Amino acid sequence: MGKIEDRIEELGLILPETPVPMGSYLPWARSGKLLFISGQLPRREGKVVYQGRVPSEISIEQAKEAAMVAALNAISVMKSALEELDRVKQILRMTCWVASSPNFFDQPQVANGASDFLVKVFGEAGKHSRMTTGVIALPANATVGVDLVVAAR
Amino acid sequence: MGKIEDRIEELGLILPETPVPMGSYLPWARSGKLLFISGQLPRREGKVVYQGRVPSEISIEQAKEAAMVAALNAISVMKSALEELDRVKQILRMTCWVASSPNFFDQPQVANGASDFLVKVFGEAGKHSRMTTGVIALPANATVGVDLVVAAR
Amino acid sequence: MGKIEDRIEELGLILPETPVPMGSYLPWARSGKLLFISGQLPRREGKVVYQGRVPSEISIEQAKEAAMVAALNAISVMKSALEELDRVKQILRMTCWVASSPNFFDQPQVANGASDFLVKVFGEAGKHSRMTTGVIALPANATVGVDLVVAAR
Repeated sequence: MGKIEDRIEELGLILPETPVPMGSYLPWARSGKLLFISGQLPRREGKVVYQGRVPSEISIEQAKEAAMVAALNAISVMKSALEELDRVKQILRMTCWVASSPNFFDQPQVANGASDFLVKVFGEAGKHSRMTTGVIALPANATVGVDLVVAAR
Repeated sequence: MGKIEDRIEELGLILPETPVPMGSYLPWARSGKLLFISGQLPRREGKVVYQGRVPSEISIEQAKEAAMVAALNAISVMKSALEELDRVKQILRMTCWVASSPNFFDQPQVANGASDFLVKVFGEAGKHSRMTTGVIALPANATVGVDLVVAAR
Repeated sequence: MGKIEDRIEELGLILPETPVPMGSYLPWARSGKLLFISGQLPRREGKVVYQGRVPSEISIEQAKEAAMVAALNAISVMKSALEELDRVKQILRMTCWVASSPNFFDQPQVANGASDFLVKVFGEAGKHSRMTTGVIALPANATVGVDLVVAAR
């Protein structure tokens, strides 16, 4: 097991199975060193476990957890793409999509749930550029979606 | 004519003229093998032909068609960028934007209209990673928007 | 000072300090020649100065200005990444996010505020592919967000 997987274990987490896509697309696609990770939702065993808009239907704290769970699924996709997570050279871009009530404007706090987690797991290699937005609705009424562009070694 | 254009013809489709951008931007930009295709709307002869939010103003079935029409426009842009569609090595990323009523959460079904079409046309090279989101409104009240990152040979 | 900075001065503008990220992410990340610029908001000295949805809370004209200010912040990030703005080879992709009232569909006009400005500053190198969408809400109630992918020399 590589260093990154050791760290995931140290954090008390188990890398889930790579989530099955929710439509006719691939979990990832690669060109040279660039790896595109499909949008991940806060799913556990296939089921979206954080639903609804922030904050009218779900709290900011829970939404942060949702972002972390989506990021964990993205890591699982990275492993399936690269076989070995130590091959992640740099996470280049995260786009974080937050299902938002009309007057919610603190999407960055929610996105930090995913960003902080990626840095915890990958250290320097996990630091990334980011775009965060509120949206009216995500697939399966998910609270958060996370997609990534990753540079591989 | 290349193989991909033959396939488009076999599907009974005609590759439209490259849509004129709806603002001060380019239909595509390229760096090395990476080709960025601007957001495409379900336009025919310049006009957005599928409008309104899913499902309150337009049905899921029509929205799937809209996604396919937007993808066809994206293919037309690919041709204008690469001259020859056989130079598409891999569609790396699709982002699919669906104008959504507040309680619509089946955006992936709409996005499949574009994804399935790209695979029909390009085969393996058309399989892609994807992010799908609902949004409150798209330019010209379009039902769907599709943008792509493509790897060229 | 390089040519691009000269042009910014000729336009009567001052390149602002690189905006501090509004969360746990980096202003930019780079892999080879590809530079990913984090989402920029219309901030001046750290404060979001254009807020609310178009057009119910802020006019289209002001939203265009907001897009230009966000793009100016993105240029500041480019400078911090590349040291010298003349190293911008091509702006490959802009995604422009416009906080929109439900029945506003002219996001491209708002996005042109950023697009036109990038071309004014960078000339041919500033021409880019683009995706523009309406969204229900952006961080800090910003009117516009702009993120970029840039090719460096």
